[in-house]
Amino acid sequence: MARVIVDVMLKPEILDPQGQAIARALPRLGFSRVADVRQGKRFEIEIDGPADEAEITKMAETLLANTVIEDFTIRLEQ
Amino acid sequence: MARVIVDVMLKPEILDPQGQAIARALPRLGFSRVADVRQGKRFEIEIDGPADEAEITKMAETLLANTVIEDFTIRLEQ
Repeated sequence: MARVIVDVMLKPEILDPQGQAIARALPRLGFSRVADVRQGKRFEIEIDGPADEAEITKMAETLLANTVIEDFTIRLEQ
Repeated sequence: MARVIVDVMLKPEILDPQGQAIARALPRLGFSRVADVRQGKRFEIEIDGPADEAEITKMAETLLANTVIEDFTIRLEQ
């Protein structure tokens, strides 16, 4: 049983209105030192047997991320 | 300038219909070894000056996570 984390974030050049809304709300709540916020998705995937990085990459490209506007990173957790 | 990652995931006892939908879709796309998927949120926050973990924790509790149903973890990067 392997555990894989896939983080999906909007590409840097894509506008992130969710992140901007958070960045604007934080100063109003008293957190004045926030310069920028980007929001993305995190997937925790349990795999039967050993994790195959090529397979996870295909999974992320096919279903988890829209690679036109999003980047993803894969982390295998023992 | 510090960079902080806040990961927000539903608590394990809370049903995750998004994750379940992905877990059901993956076998249809040929990924048969997926046992479970949980979906959460990832925030990348840029802070002016050094990051203060207590301040980030308060920020996560106040705005980023609903602590009734979600857990969060904080990672300071470099």
